[in-house]
Amino acid sequence: MSSSKYISRTTTSGVSANTIVSSLVTVQTSGRGFIDLTAEIAKFINDAGAREGAVTLFIRHTSASLTIQENADPSVLVDLMSALDRLAPEHAGWTHDTEGPDDMPAHVKTMLTASSLHIPVLNGKLALGIWQAIYLIEHRARPHRREIVLQFVGAGG
Amino acid sequence: MSSSKYISRTTTSGVSANTIVSSLVTVQTSGRGFIDLTAEIAKFINDAGAREGAVTLFIRHTSASLTIQENADPSVLVDLMSALDRLAPEHAGWTHDTEGPDDMPAHVKTMLTASSLHIPVLNGKLALGIWQAIYLIEHRARPHRREIVLQFVGAGG
Amino acid sequence: MSSSKYISRTTTSGVSANTIVSSLVTVQTSGRGFIDLTAEIAKFINDAGAREGAVTLFIRHTSASLTIQENADPSVLVDLMSALDRLAPEHAGWTHDTEGPDDMPAHVKTMLTASSLHIPVLNGKLALGIWQAIYLIEHRARPHRREIVLQFVGAGG
Repeated sequence: MSSSKYISRTTTSGVSANTIVSSLVTVQTSGRGFIDLTAEIAKFINDAGAREGAVTLFIRHTSASLTIQENADPSVLVDLMSALDRLAPEHAGWTHDTEGPDDMPAHVKTMLTASSLHIPVLNGKLALGIWQAIYLIEHRARPHRREIVLQFVGAGG
Repeated sequence: MSSSKYISRTTTSGVSANTIVSSLVTVQTSGRGFIDLTAEIAKFINDAGAREGAVTLFIRHTSASLTIQENADPSVLVDLMSALDRLAPEHAGWTHDTEGPDDMPAHVKTMLTASSLHIPVLNGKLALGIWQAIYLIEHRARPHRREIVLQFVGAGG
Repeated sequence: MSSSKYISRTTTSGVSANTIVSSLVTVQTSGRGFIDLTAEIAKFINDAGAREGAVTLFIRHTSASLTIQENADPSVLVDLMSALDRLAPEHAGWTHDTEGPDDMPAHVKTMLTASSLHIPVLNGKLALGIWQAIYLIEHRARPHRREIVLQFVGAGG
């Protein structure tokens, strides 16, 4: 397979790595659903003086998770939630059921999505595609307080 | 559980982190399927003069994704695609259907696989296992132009 | 959506990025199941003199994977394994079956979970939540020898 046919690459740009900036975000969820974190992460990147590098998001929970998904049509989020419900239904004979019927499905959904995201920062901006947003997914039925560690590693400041 | 019984670890090797190299790869897909990016990433690592650190791949789309999978038997890729089709079938009552029956399944498959990969680089080489290759997965039926940000953070150059 | 209502963020803390420490962990599994790597990773962080940054785990295999999950009730791990078995059952008409009925399901399960994890380190400690542990998941029926690359990038030593 000759990569020259259908794969192209820009020339590389290099800078010196010199800073790490960390922060903790707390999100109060209102129960099952998606919460768009994109603006908050963009603000963090700006406050950190980030120029080139990458930002990591790490969620400190096992019944809520992270994903990057389409930000245009809200019906996409409805369908993503339905898809997760089909893959990890309540009342499916789980042995771990002491914390309610929504708890074990929440763990499965967390395993199938992401606990951490890693997004490049170029020229001081998140290198997201035009339709991409960064979401926290609350998998539990009731509201929870969720903590996400943000960390930028790269050039800046 | 005594970790000494079945877990062993090499002594650590340390170097100074001093460089970030970024690049953008554009891939023209020919519709649903896997595209092996391993050689392109290895070339990037080489061009960047990377010695020790890690390379990140970040795909700027929500209907195509990334995975690391077996490179030996092509039938593995056929079965992986079948598995994704079963987990996110077309015509499953999705509410988001204006972009065609393959669109919402593509979003679900993206959520279940990876938007970013993070692969260590040791002694100037990707630390992949012998059977591992890096794949872009195109989830849409028709050809698309896909962008992937590459970024090396570590010692080199 | 006003982020000030339900999202709060601590002030950022910044340090200078100056070190990369890499190591290879070998784990002898006893067949299908979860192996808790948390203590081993904490030891690596300590040996590396890591203060602030992030540790990456990268598994060099396509039929074993990584996840961060609840460490409190062992029945959670039983149910997570059942969930993976339902999503990728044996004898589901896989075309790749020369390595045994458990091989292709192992590849699918690896694709649906993680090949790499990225966990922030703050004040010399893994920034895990109180219920989070780091697990290797062996998806093959028989024992295997698995290699995981550990890498800390950040300030320390």
